[in-house]
Amino acid sequence: MKRYAQVFQGTAFTSKSPKEVDCLREHLFCINEEGIIERVVAPEAADYQAILDDYRDEPNFQRLTQGQFILPGFIDLHVHAPQWAQAGTALDVPLYDWLHTHTFPLESKFSDLEFAQEVYDDLVSALLANGTTTALYFATVHKESSLLLARICASKGQRGLVGKVVMDDPEQNPEYYRDADTRTALEDTEQFIIEVKRLAESVKQGVYPVVTPRFIPSCTDEALKGLGELAAKHDTHIQSHCSESDWAHGYVQERLGKHDAFALHDFGLLREKSVMAHCNFLDEADAALFAETGTAISHCPISNAYFANSVIPIARWLDKGVDIGLGSDISGGFSPSLFDNARQAVISSRMLEDGVNPALPAKQRGVPASRILINEAFYLATAGGGESLSLPIGRLAEGFAWDAQMIDTALPGGKLPIFDANEDLHDIFQKIMYLSRPEHIREVWVQGEKVHSRA
Amino acid sequence: MKRYAQVFQGTAFTSKSPKEVDCLREHLFCINEEGIIERVVAPEAADYQAILDDYRDEPNFQRLTQGQFILPGFIDLHVHAPQWAQAGTALDVPLYDWLHTHTFPLESKFSDLEFAQEVYDDLVSALLANGTTTALYFATVHKESSLLLARICASKGQRGLVGKVVMDDPEQNPEYYRDADTRTALEDTEQFIIEVKRLAESVKQGVYPVVTPRFIPSCTDEALKGLGELAAKHDTHIQSHCSESDWAHGYVQERLGKHDAFALHDFGLLREKSVMAHCNFLDEADAALFAETGTAISHCPISNAYFANSVIPIARWLDKGVDIGLGSDISGGFSPSLFDNARQAVISSRMLEDGVNPALPAKQRGVPASRILINEAFYLATAGGGESLSLPIGRLAEGFAWDAQMIDTALPGGKLPIFDANEDLHDIFQKIMYLSRPEHIREVWVQGEKVHSRA
Ligand SMILES: [Zn+2]
Ligand SMILES: [Zn+2]
Repeated sequence: MKRYAQVFQGTAFTSKSPKEVDCLREHLFCINEEGIIERVVAPEAADYQAILDDYRDEPNFQRLTQGQFILPGFIDLHVHAPQWAQAGTALDVPLYDWLHTHTFPLESKFSDLEFAQEVYDDLVSALLANGTTTALYFATVHKESSLLLARICASKGQRGLVGKVVMDDPEQNPEYYRDADTRTALEDTEQFIIEVKRLAESVKQGVYPVVTPRFIPSCTDEALKGLGELAAKHDTHIQSHCSESDWAHGYVQERLGKHDAFALHDFGLLREKSVMAHCNFLDEADAALFAETGTAISHCPISNAYFANSVIPIARWLDKGVDIGLGSDISGGFSPSLFDNARQAVISSRMLEDGVNPALPAKQRGVPASRILINEAFYLATAGGGESLSLPIGRLAEGFAWDAQMIDTALPGGKLPIFDANEDLHDIFQKIMYLSRPEHIREVWVQGEKVHSRA
Repeated sequence: MKRYAQVFQGTAFTSKSPKEVDCLREHLFCINEEGIIERVVAPEAADYQAILDDYRDEPNFQRLTQGQFILPGFIDLHVHAPQWAQAGTALDVPLYDWLHTHTFPLESKFSDLEFAQEVYDDLVSALLANGTTTALYFATVHKESSLLLARICASKGQRGLVGKVVMDDPEQNPEYYRDADTRTALEDTEQFIIEVKRLAESVKQGVYPVVTPRFIPSCTDEALKGLGELAAKHDTHIQSHCSESDWAHGYVQERLGKHDAFALHDFGLLREKSVMAHCNFLDEADAALFAETGTAISHCPISNAYFANSVIPIARWLDKGVDIGLGSDISGGFSPSLFDNARQAVISSRMLEDGVNPALPAKQRGVPASRILINEAFYLATAGGGESLSLPIGRLAEGFAWDAQMIDTALPGGKLPIFDANEDLHDIFQKIMYLSRPEHIREVWVQGEKVHSRA
């Protein structure tokens, strides 16, 4: 009977649907050698006691203590890895200037592999410490340095999806930071895909190459078309930015006479494994195209407050069946924490619903029925992210990877405000979502392997 | 020459004006026996080296290490202490229901001094761990339990300003949670003032009684008038809620035929030492009355997203010379951290400026010139709070209390993303404001006394 690699006993939270959270009280989680959840066993199950008796004294059994709870690991669908070095700064300049005066100069420094190693090492560790078990990364235009990021994810045990950024248009990008030309951009991308796939052969948790045109404004039509073909040829994920701000949305409309969504689709860039950041200015037709092609939205609520000129109507697009996950957008967003972003997702949705200008009458102020609750924000950070990536992650359920974070609400010197030993589990869930800090995240696992511990 | 109780050497940040932050590189901070900053000495000063030589080997000298910085302690202008027990929950119900189905039932339990002790102990420690050195508290209607909160602040070393809440209107408040009658409400308040003033005689950092009508809807005219007289008689601080939501603002307009500001003023409740929470629906005349009477606004940006139906135009009221500070509004706001609230203050102001509804043209979406920067949010959390309370706190300057928090940006396992030893100090300041967590707050002092340490 002793066929599981690990067994955990304790209370966990996982999404049942976008609006519903399952509170799994005192369940057993049985993990196999591949790091997959083979069984989730409720106390009422016939063999619960037998499994417990069999494993409870084994070294591969872990019983959560009073105040500890398990959540799925978070899935961050939008991280600019090099921008970690400027997180929290330069948030007062508009998107176009921000790129040219701060971001491109910083990203250009990642041709230096030593600098890249220092920043990427720190970032991947920081994300794991924040409970992020899977991350979808933009690296930089540099192929070698992008590969280095994939290797660092591989060795630290994070599930990394990494893109070498393409920005080939000499009119739009500075000479010091762009692909040499369109052909080189495509060749480097294909070479990058092949090398990451080779790396992945020996990585338990997986590491994935991602076709990554920065956004339409930085790429020639030829590069965009070529990238669509490469993604199809190698069956890779695709990521880019889509209709983020008034400026970016207007630029594409002017250059191509259509919205980003249809333009990206025409270049072959919308597919089941595509994830588009922001998408604030999607209209109904754009969203329908997303739903139809299986393209996901990476919602980055903190970043959007600074750079997107609006709040995306997440509740509306969830209702339409669009896949949506959450992104930190380091460093358009300052926080490496999806807890912070989940909170802001709720807050921003409330502000869209109620509106912001107190000088207007209440009825003219906001957009009714826009709110999402913390349950939905949790879904975006976990199960929604998994569906966006078409990977079996983000849920504590059979067949899913054991990507998990253990939260200690009873941490000495930092306990959460729980004063009733019999407090309702959904209230505890909300306190965890609203009040956890990195110090409460005591252990983190990816694909069954422990990748972070404060024990 | 050895006349200082303590000398600190290191780099610190303090507000020069709402928009300007002073970066005090490698200054000496000389603290006297009363816990007051007697001198701030720049490296260029004639006697810098002499003071340093005199103190550097003494036990009362502290040299910050590489990566450590000092900020003023934070001043939280709005905390409902009992609501700590429900922080993070019930955020999806409107204000009126939230009060009657969650908040009043919880607050009524604070007649139990044992329960009050447990929650208040935990809250005051949590706030200190979050760098909050001064807090303006609503307790509950219960006089004894409110006194207990004042005593806990006194003994833990926090500068507490505490109000016994008045809610005497039998029409508006549930039978299980209100003052017995108007006369009792006033008598209890006066008794509370006298007892806190007596307690204060032996408290180094100060503890202050605050006249606290919950808000106009919960009080009779007679109580409001009586409370104004008590505040004048005993020269106390006053706190209440003012024009928070469409509902509350409309209620006062209907009952008294004027805005909250003028109604409160007529009851004698707007004075130099008054602090009014939220104030989202002030108009120009209301704000002018605030400026004229010295009444301060406690801005609670996280709470406002849930309960205030709008974003208050902070930049506009700062320009008009209104005193403004920051409040967590536990538990309308879920976070005990003014770092979190400072971040949200910036984010909310951006959303007011840009607007929220992407379906509207950019020009119709927001309110131009509404943004504040992180410098201003820092000001609100520190110097602005001090001015709001008319106390010499919130600045690292001569004559101010040594209320301070030491941030370690180089914390092992949790360093901030600083990769350049010569990084611009204002960029480091921004990284601290945007990325610090409680674990980075290594030491906290109030009035020269260390009140929290993670060393
Ligand atoms: Zn981005
Ligand atoms: Zn309040």
